[in-house]
Amino acid sequence: MKKNKKDRQLLLQETIVNTPFITDEELAEKFQVSIQTIRLDRLELSIPELRERIKHVAEKKLDDEVKALPIEEVIGDIIDLQLDESAISILEIKKEHVFSRNQIARGHHLFAQANSLAVAMINDELALTAKANIHFTRQVKENERVIAKAKIIKNDSENRRTLIEVNSYVVNELVFSGEFEMFRSNPTQR
Amino acid sequence: MKKNKKDRQLLLQETIVNTPFITDEELAEKFQVSIQTIRLDRLELSIPELRERIKHVAEKKLDDEVKALPIEEVIGDIIDLQLDESAISILEIKKEHVFSRNQIARGHHLFAQANSLAVAMINDELALTAKANIHFTRQVKENERVIAKAKIIKNDSENRRTLIEVNSYVVNELVFSGEFEMFRSNPTQR
Repeated sequence: MKKNKKDRQLLLQETIVNTPFITDEELAEKFQVSIQTIRLDRLELSIPELRERIKHVAEKKLDDEVKALPIEEVIGDIIDLQLDESAISILEIKKEHVFSRNQIARGHHLFAQANSLAVAMINDELALTAKANIHFTRQVKENERVIAKAKIIKNDSENRRTLIEVNSYVVNELVFSGEFEMFRSNPTQR
Repeated sequence: MKKNKKDRQLLLQETIVNTPFITDEELAEKFQVSIQTIRLDRLELSIPELRERIKHVAEKKLDDEVKALPIEEVIGDIIDLQLDESAISILEIKKEHVFSRNQIARGHHLFAQANSLAVAMINDELALTAKANIHFTRQVKENERVIAKAKIIKNDSENRRTLIEVNSYVVNELVFSGEFEMFRSNPTQR
């Protein structure tokens, strides 16, 4: 799937719009060119490097504020948050997150990212996890970047339960999915 | 349920045999006496204090050796292990395990204890979690001691899957239960 420069740059632009947190390494692999070529493409297209793109997102004030826990207790960086609707976070898998033997990310870190995102989404001072049903669909390795996307599936105001679905991706591949049944102290206000 | 001394000491002995990791505080509450009374009871009955009881268990060589990961990567202390059969671990809930706001243990630590015990039980160099279905049945607070008990429910040699059930308790109360579907590189040898 090697392309000529014009085609590649068009696709590159589109790819970065759709998956803004893709690394140059991942882009190089995707387009089967060198990392240097990707860097030159980005320069020509005036697309900032990944670190700048993340910083830009992080600097935009989140639309809402986390209520259920102090934001520093969230595992991963929240980059988007609509309370009682949806949320997105990024977790960089580092040495401390993987099995020493095979550099595969340990399940409880992916779980912690997803679960704390589910807690953070709840528009309530108290949010606790009652149940979870989770799948690890693809191994995650050291240095990969996991993007968790959470959304509310169902609100049961009467029982103060909220069902949240979290799907986590590396680039566009699903690596983790989970359904979290959350308990909250107040019924939802919608 | 206040008892006379003889009855209490009989019951105390029985309680410690059945739940060897119970603390003096928990015993005092159970028998509605002071901690000092419990200490005197233990002295009279020659029952060592909790720390000694745990040390004793930990010093007994585990019947089997953990294969799937270095033992220091297990979350909690393994006190019993029969590979491909059953295992028990203890996790003390400390400040770093709880939400700062309400001192309730964060779900991912209970998950990590149970999940790493499930990994440790597998008699294989490679063991990865495929799915999990978990329930948090009672809040765990700082300074409580969680005892996780894991056992194999089903071995599907053909697909190299092993189903493990983990139940975690504080004293005798169930606080967490989970079913973990584990992938292994080799079929079981039984």
